[in-house]
Amino acid sequence: MKIKRSERLIDMTAYILNHPHTLTPLTYFVKKYESAKSSISEDLTIIKKTFKERGFGVLETVAGAAGGVIFTPSIPFSESKEMIDSLCERLSEQDRLLPGGYVYLSDLLGEPQLLKQIGQIIATQYANKNIDAVMTVATKGVPIAQAVSYYLNVPFVIVRRDSKITEGSTVSVNYVSGSSERIEKMELSKRSLKRGSRVLVVDDFMKGGGTVNGMKALIEEFEAELVGITVFAESTFSGRRMVEDYTSLICVKEVDTKTKNITVVPGNYFSVMGADAIDE
Amino acid sequence: MKIKRSERLIDMTAYILNHPHTLTPLTYFVKKYESAKSSISEDLTIIKKTFKERGFGVLETVAGAAGGVIFTPSIPFSESKEMIDSLCERLSEQDRLLPGGYVYLSDLLGEPQLLKQIGQIIATQYANKNIDAVMTVATKGVPIAQAVSYYLNVPFVIVRRDSKITEGSTVSVNYVSGSSERIEKMELSKRSLKRGSRVLVVDDFMKGGGTVNGMKALIEEFEAELVGITVFAESTFSGRRMVEDYTSLICVKEVDTKTKNITVVPGNYFSVMGADAIDE
Repeated sequence: MKIKRSERLIDMTAYILNHPHTLTPLTYFVKKYESAKSSISEDLTIIKKTFKERGFGVLETVAGAAGGVIFTPSIPFSESKEMIDSLCERLSEQDRLLPGGYVYLSDLLGEPQLLKQIGQIIATQYANKNIDAVMTVATKGVPIAQAVSYYLNVPFVIVRRDSKITEGSTVSVNYVSGSSERIEKMELSKRSLKRGSRVLVVDDFMKGGGTVNGMKALIEEFEAELVGITVFAESTFSGRRMVEDYTSLICVKEVDTKTKNITVVPGNYFSVMGADAIDE
Repeated sequence: MKIKRSERLIDMTAYILNHPHTLTPLTYFVKKYESAKSSISEDLTIIKKTFKERGFGVLETVAGAAGGVIFTPSIPFSESKEMIDSLCERLSEQDRLLPGGYVYLSDLLGEPQLLKQIGQIIATQYANKNIDAVMTVATKGVPIAQAVSYYLNVPFVIVRRDSKITEGSTVSVNYVSGSSERIEKMELSKRSLKRGSRVLVVDDFMKGGGTVNGMKALIEEFEAELVGITVFAESTFSGRRMVEDYTSLICVKEVDTKTKNITVVPGNYFSVMGADAIDE
């Protein structure tokens, strides 16, 4: 059954959004809709234009016999900025203050719409870095890793502090916990990461950088390659931070346990992305 | 700037897919595209028809002053069946066998496309059950909870076996681990679940049902309501199972550690859904 352009556009949009970073041959659509290649090409031109105007990302046409279209999602800086500003506001709420000066953020990392945005923001930075896998550490880093993996369309792997029989053989490293200076252990299932993989490390929170440093060591053990580190939140740290090259979406600058004031500002995301100019 | 129908259809499709279970007033689109209400209505009729034909779910129009459209995503049984069959095949691979007769499945729970499908399949079952929150236990249940939460558009909460200072006050319960008959403890941050919430419990694996039973006890402690339990995989269990009313996507029926044969069959999903007739 031949279908109308309007229906094709709707179905193609859904398909393309659901298959980021995937080369889809034009013939796939030609066959699916029993339409002429020229019609499909016209459809794709309209989708491409709309995606660009609406800030969804880039739909690229690859020419040749092995050609097709490939969609690289991204989010405009104006949207990231709006979202990060609103996050800073939400994180400054006084009732988030926990004993010891910690800030409660588990609720945010369980909100699907927010996670989608975080995923898009982080994936935008690494869209053209040929990432093979996203790595994080259990438990609170998992939602962020999964959100990013949806947009980069690569698997995520979970490093654990405790061994589980359901993981099979593991590779473990010891690392120095930055803030408490204790020696801890983390491990990753041996079969979960291929040698030579290009790895993006994400986590929910970074203080001294010890955990992230541990993941760096694990990546080396797997003979894989660290491409970048992005944390949802960093906090100012008085000691010497173990990791220097990282990106943060937000920064918990000051926590005053007496007045219960939490000062949260945007992290270094925009300066890393070279987008400081958009500030206001 | 007024835009063409084709561009509206593309942008509206993206918006609606990204906002499941959310009532969007027609005026939102009228304003966004500076188009007449009648045009928007026509667009929505086309989208509704295409979504239905392509098996994306139901786009419903709610009439009246507070009206609009609401999208309830679902996945057709034929697609769930295909996906569950292919999962059974992948889980039967001999090299998944771990010492002790366990089956390795961490890689699957890190694949974004697979997680999306699992999320859709589970969300289809609870699409009209007014779920307020998805609950799971750390760590391996998290990806499933997140995937489901994307399609139901509700937050997910993570129960933990170990206390963390970053969770604030918690409520804990003791539970009997079904397979090992040890007494264990699990806890949930006090502020993460509102009283009266309608909760869907999901987990990666169920054997004796002890963990799921623990979550049931926690839900009672929070004076919340258990609406349903769905596990990715169940395994046959020789003892008395602690949980009777649950749904499973797949069932690890037999593990022969000598021949290394793993027998995996579809779980009770289709019989629970009353869809046994579609079997072949």
